[in-house]
Amino acid sequence: MIIDDPLVKAEVEAAFARYEAALVGNDVATLEALFHDDPRTIRYGANENLYGMDAIRAFRRSRSPQGLARDLSGTVITTYGSDCAVAMTLFSRSGAPGRIGRQSQTWLRFPEGWKVVAAHVSVIDA
Amino acid sequence: MIIDDPLVKAEVEAAFARYEAALVGNDVATLEALFHDDPRTIRYGANENLYGMDAIRAFRRSRSPQGLARDLSGTVITTYGSDCAVAMTLFSRSGAPGRIGRQSQTWLRFPEGWKVVAAHVSVIDA
Repeated sequence: MIIDDPLVKAEVEAAFARYEAALVGNDVATLEALFHDDPRTIRYGANENLYGMDAIRAFRRSRSPQGLARDLSGTVITTYGSDCAVAMTLFSRSGAPGRIGRQSQTWLRFPEGWKVVAAHVSVIDA
Repeated sequence: MIIDDPLVKAEVEAAFARYEAALVGNDVATLEALFHDDPRTIRYGANENLYGMDAIRAFRRSRSPQGLARDLSGTVITTYGSDCAVAMTLFSRSGAPGRIGRQSQTWLRFPEGWKVVAAHVSVIDA
């Protein structure tokens, strides 16, 4: 298994960047399109545990679009083979000084493209 | 890509169970053996962000062995193909009523067996 094959990594980096832009822009359609539409997709959010794409969609569609801007740090994207990747990043928001967010995502390559199959977001004291 | 192939799933379930037993028993050697020994392995813990196996090892070896017992719920292990899996679970501890933990792990098959390449643990109000 090749770790961090440059071509694979570039693909996932592009998907990750697309996700990040959609997140801060509250582009719900893109956010949903980048998650695997399946009952087995799970997202542990900052304050909620979402099992299945239906729960994730309901959360996205009811979320306030305010205060989503954030700065990333410590971002590491690692690809394993040609079809699996992990994206880990820290984030901070100007409205939450002294706090640091952590976001982890597992990305898989499907026939229709790279999709998140599992995600976890949490915030702790910096 | 076959999702949840029974044979693959059984392997990951066994690895997950081994990890859980090691965690509550503070069997540090087994915990370390079940993580991919690599600088790219990342673990976001309840209160710490550990980049690389050296940081993860240092944390494990200095951790208090007290109060590690916990009850799991909402555990979902999903395998993608033959070499990649995600394990998501909630947990609670008797010493932390009203709080719910979330643990997510990405497991990959290496020649030496299944290993966690990324993990994220956080605790929120239940």
